[in-house]
Amino acid sequence: MMMRMRMKFHEQLDDLTDRLASMCHLAGEAIETATDALVRADLPQAELVFDLTEQKQLHGPCEEQALALQAPVARDLRQVVTGVHLVSDLSRMGGLAQHVAESVRRRHPDHVASGEAEELLARMGRVAGALAGLAEQVLRTHDPGLAAELGRRDDELDDLHRRLLTLIQDPAWTGSITAAVDATLLGRFYERFGDHTVVVGRRVIFLVTGEQLSP
Amino acid sequence: MMMRMRMKFHEQLDDLTDRLASMCHLAGEAIETATDALVRADLPQAELVFDLTEQKQLHGPCEEQALALQAPVARDLRQVVTGVHLVSDLSRMGGLAQHVAESVRRRHPDHVASGEAEELLARMGRVAGALAGLAEQVLRTHDPGLAAELGRRDDELDDLHRRLLTLIQDPAWTGSITAAVDATLLGRFYERFGDHTVVVGRRVIFLVTGEQLSP
Repeated sequence: MMMRMRMKFHEQLDDLTDRLASMCHLAGEAIETATDALVRADLPQAELVFDLTEQKQLHGPCEEQALALQAPVARDLRQVVTGVHLVSDLSRMGGLAQHVAESVRRRHPDHVASGEAEELLARMGRVAGALAGLAEQVLRTHDPGLAAELGRRDDELDDLHRRLLTLIQDPAWTGSITAAVDATLLGRFYERFGDHTVVVGRRVIFLVTGEQLSP
Repeated sequence: MMMRMRMKFHEQLDDLTDRLASMCHLAGEAIETATDALVRADLPQAELVFDLTEQKQLHGPCEEQALALQAPVARDLRQVVTGVHLVSDLSRMGGLAQHVAESVRRRHPDHVASGEAEELLARMGRVAGALAGLAEQVLRTHDPGLAAELGRRDDELDDLHRRLLTLIQDPAWTGSITAAVDATLLGRFYERFGDHTVVVGRRVIFLVTGEQLSP
């Protein structure tokens, strides 16, 4: 019985590898098509990328397949896998914080940003910190209400991000191109940080209840 | 025996949750410290972020712990978990291709980039596509030589990325701030795409041989 289970398991893994290779192929096609669209400012070509990436192969089924294993290990496996995902999200959050610090080091003793841009970045940093605090609470309490709250507070971060991009592209803005490059990257780092905290919340609720948090 | 294994397993999961919460706490501290450093252009504060994120808690041990499970499931589990990671990497690659296409749509009918910047982006796109092709081959053939090749070709992408950032920050560059913002983001998307292909290669080799590819 155990033997049969393990054989089935390995067949599934082989099948999974094949699907992964197809996903990779699709991603390669997508980036080439997107670059083509970029170079020719070709809208239909850009739309093609969305068609490509929206193909089911680039999303859920592989993961589901990876986890569609026989009871009784299935539930434990889902938990382990979710735990491992959480580790990735949280490491990535640390990595993004590091990117912010790297840009401070790169520009020292100058400020990376100034004026309103710096103010917006400071606010993004505060919201990002608050989001991490919330995510930590979700990890400790498994409270689905708090996990939903993460999404709402992340909207605030997205809003600040939009304001930052609008600000630096305003003709009235007096900053240099380097300042614009820095602000663009920093904004992106904070935005990604926030996205990861939201995902952490969703994963914790899935880990605890087995239910997907509604978006 | 099975019962005892499962109990041990759940104890480990609880312990893991606790460590995850600590990781989250650290990431939150790191982003706040980094923001502080950013706003005050404070180098020692920035260095503190590296100290924080280099703490072991933000790296391997959790994942190892998540996988330090009893034989005979340990090996199968590692495979499943690696498979799931691969799914994430490949989805993310698709997402990044989509970001490129989104920027084409946003600027249409104008070109997102022009001149030498567009040329560099086109080259980044070609390398990214080639990297995806290589990663696909690694997935299909499990060839460690090809996986190592991914790292080398990704260096090419990083080099193009640096040249792009240097170009747009050159005083001689005549592009607008918006063009600089776009080029900055696009460069970042391609760079991340390449990073993911390298990780895909490493994971495949780990999946097949159980050995980490030396960096």
